[in-house]
Amino acid sequence: MEFKELFPVWNQLTQAQQETLEKAATLHHFEKGARIHSGSGDCVGLLLISKGLLRVFTCTEEGREITLYRLFERDLCLFSASCMLHSLQMDVYVEAEESTAAYLIPPQIYQKLMTSSLPIANYTNELMASRFSEVMWLLDQVLSKSFDARLAAFLLEERDVEGRDDLHITHDQIARHLGSAREVVSRMLKHFQAEGLTETARGTILLKNCEGLERLAGTARR
Amino acid sequence: MEFKELFPVWNQLTQAQQETLEKAATLHHFEKGARIHSGSGDCVGLLLISKGLLRVFTCTEEGREITLYRLFERDLCLFSASCMLHSLQMDVYVEAEESTAAYLIPPQIYQKLMTSSLPIANYTNELMASRFSEVMWLLDQVLSKSFDARLAAFLLEERDVEGRDDLHITHDQIARHLGSAREVVSRMLKHFQAEGLTETARGTILLKNCEGLERLAGTARR
Repeated sequence: MEFKELFPVWNQLTQAQQETLEKAATLHHFEKGARIHSGSGDCVGLLLISKGLLRVFTCTEEGREITLYRLFERDLCLFSASCMLHSLQMDVYVEAEESTAAYLIPPQIYQKLMTSSLPIANYTNELMASRFSEVMWLLDQVLSKSFDARLAAFLLEERDVEGRDDLHITHDQIARHLGSAREVVSRMLKHFQAEGLTETARGTILLKNCEGLERLAGTARR
Repeated sequence: MEFKELFPVWNQLTQAQQETLEKAATLHHFEKGARIHSGSGDCVGLLLISKGLLRVFTCTEEGREITLYRLFERDLCLFSASCMLHSLQMDVYVEAEESTAAYLIPPQIYQKLMTSSLPIANYTNELMASRFSEVMWLLDQVLSKSFDARLAAFLLEERDVEGRDDLHITHDQIARHLGSAREVVSRMLKHFQAEGLTETARGTILLKNCEGLERLAGTARR
């Protein structure tokens, strides 16, 4: 898809602003698994996703990963340009969960546009509020939910993303999404299997009873 | 302190914008313990703190409170105007931790200024990024830290806020700050006392070995 079809508030920009953006944005392709952004020291720029799926996550001090949110087609990733937001001191990582095509906007260009375009400044505010909201939801999950509910919610979300009941995902990958350990995931999946909710075979997790998983996930799903 | 001395980016506003703001802002006094804002349904407006201390917290589904951050003199509280930010769906509560004087800015006025003043829009962005960063830090704490380190860090922070070594705070209040249960706090403080770190007497917690607490808190402190 063309840049101007993807960029939010495009029609509210002046012609000069549109030209600046279109000239500065470059299309990049990332292989599945590619690390695109690593922590606050890294400032690659803003990513506007044309096709694919990115995962935004953070690492705890002990090196555990936990997924903050995922970005789909048309989503704009702010945190790959952490240098742009001085107050933001968190170490956030971005990687391609699928083969992804994204436009990269240099942070200086976007920053300059933010100080000259009210629509862009206000769009950025909305975006930040929305991501903030997702992280608050996650915090609530971590504080409130037992691990079985979180795992059930994750498997169902994964099903929505993949569009199929047999998920090609390892226990280790799930652990990294949920900020847990592989052993904990394996133990819980064994329990799920005993309950007839899932079945694990040859690197695949088959969701056998989605209603049961829904019940378990309860209000854990957004 | 006068409103114009407190409001950020005041000098970057037009005279008309300054007049609008000054006319709309009203000074309010809140007693210690007063609930100022309750969740996303409530939209009292933005609070600009002239004197005092506000606590911003969220509640888990089981009703446990956890402090997100505190707001001091000159701080602007965005989330008391949750209606302003459509994407923000989290239930955040604000209460006066001390007797507080704050200017209240009606959300419609602020919102209108955001769409007409780039300095205000960009200041709001910075503010949101900064609060976001604090919540990310908290998430990391919850995921990474053992409870003893979090409690030690909290006691030291409380000492900074109060400016004294004997803290007038109940175990229940601490539990609500840390999203824990009173029993857990009491048990840990008993352990701290046995270690010679603190001493509990007549509703007071005396910090006896701040170096020891610092060591325990480790990198848990900001």
